[in-house]
Amino acid sequence: MQADVSAAPEGPELDSIETDVRALALRAREASRVLASTTTARKDGVLLRVAALLDGPAALEILAANARDLAAAQAAGIAPAMLDRLRLDEKRLAAVADGVRAIVDLPDPVGDVVHDRTLPNGLRVKRVRAPLGVIGIVYEARPNVTIDAAALCLKSGNAVILRGGKEAFETNAALAKVVGEALRAEGLPEAAVSTLGTTDRRATLALIRQSGLVDVVIPRGGEGLIRFVTENAKVPVIQHFKGVCHVYVAGDAAPEMALAIVRNAKVQRPSACNAAETVLVDRAIAESFLPKLAQALPEVELRGCDATCALVQRAKPATSEDWDTEHLALVLNVRVVDDLDDALTHIAAHGSLHTEAIVTRDPVKGERFVREVDASLVLVNASTRFNDGYQLGLGAEMGISTSKLHAYGPMGLEELCTLRWVAHGEGQIRK
Amino acid sequence: MQADVSAAPEGPELDSIETDVRALALRAREASRVLASTTTARKDGVLLRVAALLDGPAALEILAANARDLAAAQAAGIAPAMLDRLRLDEKRLAAVADGVRAIVDLPDPVGDVVHDRTLPNGLRVKRVRAPLGVIGIVYEARPNVTIDAAALCLKSGNAVILRGGKEAFETNAALAKVVGEALRAEGLPEAAVSTLGTTDRRATLALIRQSGLVDVVIPRGGEGLIRFVTENAKVPVIQHFKGVCHVYVAGDAAPEMALAIVRNAKVQRPSACNAAETVLVDRAIAESFLPKLAQALPEVELRGCDATCALVQRAKPATSEDWDTEHLALVLNVRVVDDLDDALTHIAAHGSLHTEAIVTRDPVKGERFVREVDASLVLVNASTRFNDGYQLGLGAEMGISTSKLHAYGPMGLEELCTLRWVAHGEGQIRK
Repeated sequence: MQADVSAAPEGPELDSIETDVRALALRAREASRVLASTTTARKDGVLLRVAALLDGPAALEILAANARDLAAAQAAGIAPAMLDRLRLDEKRLAAVADGVRAIVDLPDPVGDVVHDRTLPNGLRVKRVRAPLGVIGIVYEARPNVTIDAAALCLKSGNAVILRGGKEAFETNAALAKVVGEALRAEGLPEAAVSTLGTTDRRATLALIRQSGLVDVVIPRGGEGLIRFVTENAKVPVIQHFKGVCHVYVAGDAAPEMALAIVRNAKVQRPSACNAAETVLVDRAIAESFLPKLAQALPEVELRGCDATCALVQRAKPATSEDWDTEHLALVLNVRVVDDLDDALTHIAAHGSLHTEAIVTRDPVKGERFVREVDASLVLVNASTRFNDGYQLGLGAEMGISTSKLHAYGPMGLEELCTLRWVAHGEGQIRK
Repeated sequence: MQADVSAAPEGPELDSIETDVRALALRAREASRVLASTTTARKDGVLLRVAALLDGPAALEILAANARDLAAAQAAGIAPAMLDRLRLDEKRLAAVADGVRAIVDLPDPVGDVVHDRTLPNGLRVKRVRAPLGVIGIVYEARPNVTIDAAALCLKSGNAVILRGGKEAFETNAALAKVVGEALRAEGLPEAAVSTLGTTDRRATLALIRQSGLVDVVIPRGGEGLIRFVTENAKVPVIQHFKGVCHVYVAGDAAPEMALAIVRNAKVQRPSACNAAETVLVDRAIAESFLPKLAQALPEVELRGCDATCALVQRAKPATSEDWDTEHLALVLNVRVVDDLDDALTHIAAHGSLHTEAIVTRDPVKGERFVREVDASLVLVNASTRFNDGYQLGLGAEMGISTSKLHAYGPMGLEELCTLRWVAHGEGQIRK
């Protein structure tokens, strides 16, 4: 995705790509006006149809499309981990369908009144949740994002334009067809959910430049993809950058709790963005704690500072890049810090505004950590793995924003909305 | 501001501008960490000092600087309306100081808990308001923005980098000096409020590209300025585009109320972005209403559709551009529409997501207008001029956002914050 756009061929072909994307965005915009005032029952009706098709009559066609994608990916020599992310089977498809049913069960945010006040002049002013409009999603291989994103956008009254990865092209087309069928059956415009129809990067570029038609672009995927979108977009972007998450074990931490939290944060799902990459251990307890840590994480490769390596034989010296790396694997950086201040300095330098945790018995230390660390979720005495829409009680989510603008943390249905003002008067004018 | 940046000279000079801006942004970032945990009392202390200096010991120096700016602007042949916006006198300075005191009286948003819930696993999760971090403001001549913006950012715990117009350069420097003095006196970093120190457009460009250091840029000024920032920024932008606001007078509207609202919306302050530019009149009442409208707006130039021109002798034919123009003057477009649908179609085509009003006695029509019109404020039976932080009960504001992302409508102190998650546990890990 690190496109050198200036090197792309110009001429009629490019013009026609841009014209097509603009036309697509215009249709999405029109559909978004319809969706904004569609009832909850009708939106849920579409979602239930999508779910029923996914684990029913459409399953065969989707799995056949997925098999073609898998064969092409295998032929292209794609890594086994990527292949696994790309693969759908009946069980996974049923899980995707259940995810859609779970979104049906979530409350519709559109129309929520979050502020209602009558001013001294009698004007009644409210702030009401309303859809953003048209959302562009640019994502990589995982095909479940196609359905998750479509379902979340529909439920929140938004039209969506999906641009998935080229490895999942056939699968995504089959999935989008299912959504189109469900929209049609409920009498809603099919343009409410559309796919770019090409993975040509010039089309992606055209999509993220549709100022006035596309309200926001959400890139989901690796850092390269997110940087490409951020650097080139002319519409607002909600960034989901990498998670370099820390657990700081204070000198007064209960060792058993600290070990359980670090283990959970690192091992439970190392490929997740809210997995821990670095543990910071207070010098006061390093000598007793670090050997226990090494013992508690037998399958994890440890990369340590000098003090760590002196205390843990199997630790390798960490490089300066390690402290800024999202390993997404069973690799953990370990650093001995002098105190809370030293930990705060390390996190300010290497944190990614994602998730940060402290383990301590001292509430004053906990509060200082909460106050001074900048991250979308700061935890005291709990695992970093809780930074997730389901875990925080939001329901399904559209990834975790590390932008502070608009949404910071998991993006649920409410975060796919804006708040607009509505005022009712009896002829009030301004004095 | 329509900079052709590619034509700017490259070389060591540009390098040094970029280095300087980066250093400035880094200092602002460090100051933002201090401000984020500064108490309300201390922030208010700075603001009270600023106010006391403005209408006290610093007034003479500021007015002298303003006199130099005015002389230069006059020599450059700047329009009288612009000169008036640039001018400060003792009375205006006192009003700016009072504006700062009003911000002292507003509640501090930082630390507000907007969600507090204990999950089934015992984890207590909150969403807490926190500063955005470093805010860049790029604005035009009006020097009061310098103090308003600094005061709003300080109160909400943000560091700010100000880039004012070149016409007000000396005035802005004198105003910024006052803020620096107040920060120093309270022991806070002066880098909490800084000015770019040059109006070189390459420095502005460097400022709006400081990804990772500047959290958001807010452009305030004409459409050209806002487009320049939107097109060139690499950091998130909150757009405040033009206001092409409509008043739709439904067939059942009480004529007296409609006349009063249209007059207020157009005449009370025509240079404001929430002033009306177009009135849409239902065909059913056009014959009786339009002559009354013309009579009620003797000082306003009317530009009408054919039907309007046939009914109002002094109306000139509107051009196709008029319907999309923010006149900012005593000029009003008038169009006869068939019905509510026709009005909705016109507003969807020509509205600017700013402020839209309907005058009607029929609550069903009112609700349909509210539901289907997309604007940061939709009013039923009240003047468009109410789209303003003070008027809607927010207190001072940083302009009116027409972005749907993050803030839609007046940006008060709360909109200068983000919501972050905080979780307290007793060792919870994810199953």
